[in-house]
Amino acid sequence: MNIEQLRADTPAVAQLIHFNNAGAALMPAPVIETMTRHIQLEANLGGYEAAGQQSAEVENVYSAIGRLINAEPDEIAVIENATRAWDMAFYSLPLQPGDVVLTSTTEYAGNYIPYLQMKQRRGIEIRLIPNDEHGQISLTALKTLLDDERVALISLPVIATNGGPVQPVEQIGALARAAGVLFLLDACQGVGQMPIDVDKIGCHMLAATSRKYLRGPRGMGFLYVERSLCQNLEPAFLDLHAASLQNAETFTIRADARRFENWECNVAAKLGLGAAVEYALMQGVEAMWQRIQRLADYLRQQLAEIPGVTPRDLGAVKSGIVTFSHCNSTAAQVQQWLAGQEKRINVTSSTFRSTLLDMQHRDLLEVSRASLHAYNTEAEIETMIAALRALPNP
Amino acid sequence: MNIEQLRADTPAVAQLIHFNNAGAALMPAPVIETMTRHIQLEANLGGYEAAGQQSAEVENVYSAIGRLINAEPDEIAVIENATRAWDMAFYSLPLQPGDVVLTSTTEYAGNYIPYLQMKQRRGIEIRLIPNDEHGQISLTALKTLLDDERVALISLPVIATNGGPVQPVEQIGALARAAGVLFLLDACQGVGQMPIDVDKIGCHMLAATSRKYLRGPRGMGFLYVERSLCQNLEPAFLDLHAASLQNAETFTIRADARRFENWECNVAAKLGLGAAVEYALMQGVEAMWQRIQRLADYLRQQLAEIPGVTPRDLGAVKSGIVTFSHCNSTAAQVQQWLAGQEKRINVTSSTFRSTLLDMQHRDLLEVSRASLHAYNTEAEIETMIAALRALPNP
Repeated sequence: MNIEQLRADTPAVAQLIHFNNAGAALMPAPVIETMTRHIQLEANLGGYEAAGQQSAEVENVYSAIGRLINAEPDEIAVIENATRAWDMAFYSLPLQPGDVVLTSTTEYAGNYIPYLQMKQRRGIEIRLIPNDEHGQISLTALKTLLDDERVALISLPVIATNGGPVQPVEQIGALARAAGVLFLLDACQGVGQMPIDVDKIGCHMLAATSRKYLRGPRGMGFLYVERSLCQNLEPAFLDLHAASLQNAETFTIRADARRFENWECNVAAKLGLGAAVEYALMQGVEAMWQRIQRLADYLRQQLAEIPGVTPRDLGAVKSGIVTFSHCNSTAAQVQQWLAGQEKRINVTSSTFRSTLLDMQHRDLLEVSRASLHAYNTEAEIETMIAALRALPNP
Repeated sequence: MNIEQLRADTPAVAQLIHFNNAGAALMPAPVIETMTRHIQLEANLGGYEAAGQQSAEVENVYSAIGRLINAEPDEIAVIENATRAWDMAFYSLPLQPGDVVLTSTTEYAGNYIPYLQMKQRRGIEIRLIPNDEHGQISLTALKTLLDDERVALISLPVIATNGGPVQPVEQIGALARAAGVLFLLDACQGVGQMPIDVDKIGCHMLAATSRKYLRGPRGMGFLYVERSLCQNLEPAFLDLHAASLQNAETFTIRADARRFENWECNVAAKLGLGAAVEYALMQGVEAMWQRIQRLADYLRQQLAEIPGVTPRDLGAVKSGIVTFSHCNSTAAQVQQWLAGQEKRINVTSSTFRSTLLDMQHRDLLEVSRASLHAYNTEAEIETMIAALRALPNP
């Protein structure tokens, strides 16, 4: 990995320190160029005419994503964002009254609300998988929970939005397969950060976003659906791209995962996602994962030495998302201090609102979040640590 | 209206003739600039940080749309595209077995498929409103159909994708209100082309796209939901933007129309939509509508004089979408011929596939479609006519 090149491709790092990669990472130059070039092409030719000219590049987005997660292109749907990608999977499942959905305390509230909605609508039951001593889900407990034949789905994030453990997804997948239970993986914080191999994981469905560790544009995401499942899953919404009309009484749903898409999309952003995936593959995801973990460990060590700062990360395996509390300042104050004046350090706060179950479980209201990417450096971490040490008492 | 300025804002018109405005219009310079500027801001600051800096401009998108269609900003949801905007309205309706949905022969197949899906899922019934002698829906027939108390919804496009009549939406709205029936209007081909006033129309919900006559970016759209209806309509999908989690058992859905949105969006495209709406308002939609109709009438007259060409437009009021058949050539051949060599005239074809009911009704398989905007000119029309006259016999 060539860190200098990574940083040269990310000109803003000369001006600021971006530790908000779990929110939206800085896009590398090839992504920016791909998008602006396509927008210009649309202005020069017309929107449809430009897409027609770039149809091979559009197809390539599917094969690039396939290579990234070890899936076939026909198992990929490119969707407006990860939320709607996840929704198209979850809300399409034929859940019945009494069916049990297993999730983790690290679940994102934006996914948990749909579980509650489905509980109200269809009478499903939601159960939390207990955690082990590392704070990740207990595989022993999961195994026991899977003895109940009413379990229809395991659904959880590989990494929570507020950091925490990297869940043992391969073991979860193996248990799900053995029990004949569907496994929906929210990989929003995983793709681009760590190797994600749907074959090794054994998940049936996986939703992911473009804007986080993949470094792609906002407003773009994708869904993987295993081929054998795909054809049995009628999408919650249909249109003329997902299905075709045979006559006034009959429609046919297409066979591939694009049944979860709809016709219209932001082609510039779709091509930008493709460019981001190609860029990640070129860097090597395994190499980035090693570096991200190393940087994050370094930050955690440094944070632990600052008086009044408490690191908040759990897990036998930890990710690039580093969370902490400051005894004298709120997370908003920390964020504002680090962003302010000449410092220009982007961190954020993760609130009770977005990871309620985990926060309740750990008796927290919020944490500060610094999420590191491979283009970040030890020197940037040291700058942040110095700034944090200088944080005035309120 | 300053046609020279309109064309100066659309540099591509010097290179080509764009008559595919019903597919995706050429974006004017302010839209392109708004998008590329925001993408650059994201590259310079980070995606969330850029959105934070532009939050007032993002809010302004809602008020601009409100001014365009005479709605309040809290009645507007900005959604990934018109399909999903329409879906979020239609699939959220609490339709019951036996409920009747009334639509028109001009309905888009992409909307009709969801009716069929809902028929399979919930046992609704679909009825077509008969047409009058102009080819638009018969208000007399609609009135009779509304006598059936099982009618729950009127849902149709103001203008079909393959042209045809501008439906008498104000009269339809008045009948819907009198009968206490919901009215969902697909205004994809309407907004930006003709004045659309939700108050005058009396529709309860309206879905529209950015990329067609509004001249905004692809991959963006919006939904209007009347305030009094909004709060009683639980969105088909929910997330942490549409709802908030109170505790592990309870969520609360926000009150305004943004309950139909989700958190993540392509901010550059959203701001681009705002710029497109401001641009349309600045030109004056009524003035554009007069000009578009005048140009389209001129094209229809000229087409009628070409041997072997049959104009295909119906309706007491016709739009800027002009359709026709050529006795010796398929629509694909016409498209290819006009686009080819030095001519660079963008027209398209509208097939059986996308407007099946209308095509069956009129015994057609396809039509050629030239869709005109206010930035088009008589001279461009004459160039197309000359090219069409020179179309070789196959």
